[in-house]
Amino acid sequence: MHRRTPRSKLGMSTIKCLTQRPRENSKIAAKQQIDASDWIEGKDLGLEVLSAAPLVLSTPHELLAQHRITDKKHIFVRNVQDLAPGMTIKPLPLDGWEIELTGLIRPSRLVIRAEELLAMAQVEHEMILQCSGNGRTQYSGVKGTPWGQGGVANVRFAGVPLKAILEKHDVEVDPQVRYVTAEGHDQPANPEKPDFEHSIPVADVLERGILALSLNGEPLPGIHGGPVRLVTPGLYGTMQVKWLARLRFDAAESPTFYHATEYRVPHALLSIGEEFRFTLENSRPTWDIRLMSYIFDPPPGARLKAGPVTVSGVAYNDGKALIESVLVSVDRGRSWRAAAVEVPASPYAWYEWKTEVTLAPGTHEIWARATDALGRTQPLDGEIFWNPNGYEWSGVPRNEVTVQP
Amino acid sequence: MHRRTPRSKLGMSTIKCLTQRPRENSKIAAKQQIDASDWIEGKDLGLEVLSAAPLVLSTPHELLAQHRITDKKHIFVRNVQDLAPGMTIKPLPLDGWEIELTGLIRPSRLVIRAEELLAMAQVEHEMILQCSGNGRTQYSGVKGTPWGQGGVANVRFAGVPLKAILEKHDVEVDPQVRYVTAEGHDQPANPEKPDFEHSIPVADVLERGILALSLNGEPLPGIHGGPVRLVTPGLYGTMQVKWLARLRFDAAESPTFYHATEYRVPHALLSIGEEFRFTLENSRPTWDIRLMSYIFDPPPGARLKAGPVTVSGVAYNDGKALIESVLVSVDRGRSWRAAAVEVPASPYAWYEWKTEVTLAPGTHEIWARATDALGRTQPLDGEIFWNPNGYEWSGVPRNEVTVQP
Repeated sequence: MHRRTPRSKLGMSTIKCLTQRPRENSKIAAKQQIDASDWIEGKDLGLEVLSAAPLVLSTPHELLAQHRITDKKHIFVRNVQDLAPGMTIKPLPLDGWEIELTGLIRPSRLVIRAEELLAMAQVEHEMILQCSGNGRTQYSGVKGTPWGQGGVANVRFAGVPLKAILEKHDVEVDPQVRYVTAEGHDQPANPEKPDFEHSIPVADVLERGILALSLNGEPLPGIHGGPVRLVTPGLYGTMQVKWLARLRFDAAESPTFYHATEYRVPHALLSIGEEFRFTLENSRPTWDIRLMSYIFDPPPGARLKAGPVTVSGVAYNDGKALIESVLVSVDRGRSWRAAAVEVPASPYAWYEWKTEVTLAPGTHEIWARATDALGRTQPLDGEIFWNPNGYEWSGVPRNEVTVQP
Repeated sequence: MHRRTPRSKLGMSTIKCLTQRPRENSKIAAKQQIDASDWIEGKDLGLEVLSAAPLVLSTPHELLAQHRITDKKHIFVRNVQDLAPGMTIKPLPLDGWEIELTGLIRPSRLVIRAEELLAMAQVEHEMILQCSGNGRTQYSGVKGTPWGQGGVANVRFAGVPLKAILEKHDVEVDPQVRYVTAEGHDQPANPEKPDFEHSIPVADVLERGILALSLNGEPLPGIHGGPVRLVTPGLYGTMQVKWLARLRFDAAESPTFYHATEYRVPHALLSIGEEFRFTLENSRPTWDIRLMSYIFDPPPGARLKAGPVTVSGVAYNDGKALIESVLVSVDRGRSWRAAAVEVPASPYAWYEWKTEVTLAPGTHEIWARATDALGRTQPLDGEIFWNPNGYEWSGVPRNEVTVQP
């Protein structure tokens, strides 16, 4: 039996909006089918399937807007490599799970039993989990998973700070160490393919990185990297390495394919379509989450009655500075009005915002633009950061709506 | 005879505005006197004296607002080290002036006669000349020349691209070269003090750096670095090295005092007053000009009649992206309106902008905020970038005005 993934009303509207520009048609993705045996039981059937193997599921904004904390049944799925036992919304067993610490440390190798982490003090971060490819379909002519805007969630990860583990085991980190390279138990789909791992600045991991054991207060589901995932709030999802097997303390960034040539953006601005050969020197990894906002309501394509309309959505950044304002414009940027913004307790979580606008009959674009205390805002045209792999889309969202007379 | 520098009406208003915050009182500077024999004949008497030796003159906005191109009589003066024959608004003679090229090049040393530059094709840049300390008095508790907002000008520099000189002389630059270190003929005030030089990324200098021979279409005045100044548009003024004597092609940044410990900002954000010991690794030089805007009119402290008020000013950045909007708010950021912005032909020049607001009787703050295509805008509170030397102020200007009933 094959199950066709339902397309939500909002999903359809998004597609309609996106195809106004000369981009990859995300309908191809929405048409994908998936074997019932491959489906993750417990995931909401409203998720969109962007790829069957490895499994990629996208969350329509309609579902994201329902709750401040994204429920596990709604959280998007994106694996570069699948781990067979991990294809479940249930937790994987902690017993027998080990994490190796190696590299420029003393002792030079240490094995942590995941079970011992349960007995240590847990730290929880409410935080954005976002695929660095989210929004990709808004870039012209890029390849890769055709993400609309559904590769994002706001969740609560809890676990043991890496720093506490090092302290407990008297591990000494060599002053030469600049990165922690994380690798999971997942393997490439075939042996010819490179294995997946990522390097993260050691300062970030030691400041706030945790070996996460739980998600939204429950044991971490296999599909989201359980039993143990390295989680460093403020960084893109690809850096939150699932099914954690090894942490290597390195003086240099990993030279492997996924870290050194994929999941990177050029230092320089490129023209659309420009060829680029990534090196560790001419580019940086997709680490810090770019400032972003979404208009959840009204969704693109909405048909509204004339009069006051409540506009609402979320905004977030890398947690390095307060988001001070979300401005909304209904006249294509000629004037802007500040929305009411709810500042979350965690700087890594999303900010909910809301305002009211009055629209006359006709077609309108609603724009939203977040700005933080560092003077960082969203580009009006996100294509300014065009990059060959289509990462880190952060353009001002523009929801087209029609007001009936 | 001593001449007391007149304080313009606008200058006084600025001081009034600034002293509302607990900062260094710029009146101290304005009270400075200067020997008539030390005055630069030809400089406008409306300039403010911030220091007598080395000479520092600031330009009130009232004078800046008069012309798109800042006249040489109005251009601010800031020397780290004075060159005695250069203390004139007249040009210095080109004949006999030599510039040495050295470092990681082949041949390893080359001497250019300034006169030969005259015969080569000249390139002109309309561009911002701005002291990196401009706006310093708006930071809390920093030392250094007490700049208000008058360390900026919009000028036209013309000269010969360094790249063309290298090509003419068949100079080969070693692939290891990452910086060009520039040094002038000026010397420290006493032999115990370190000499002044700066390193600039070689890519920037080779892309657009010129050996400037003229300013606003006339031979370059001595006081502004003539006869030859290294000018790289988009960089702060300190990097535009005057009285050019030597260019060294280096693999590393200059380890000298002014480059390696002064004229730098920390990579990390600091708290106000936090101590910081600069190294080449934990900080960066004041290279690229931060996005900035000024409200020239109405000036701070203006008394206006009720009704429509024209608000105007300028904005600029490092030239790396178009400034897309200047928004103006008269309700402390609750709503913003886009000003009409005139895009200059040169990306390194200032943008003039203008809009109209309607103000009711009472006291108001007028705010202006520029945003560029990269999604860079000005921080609402410039102190977020507090740094011990008070460089790169870029906060949203807030001109307080009173509307009479």
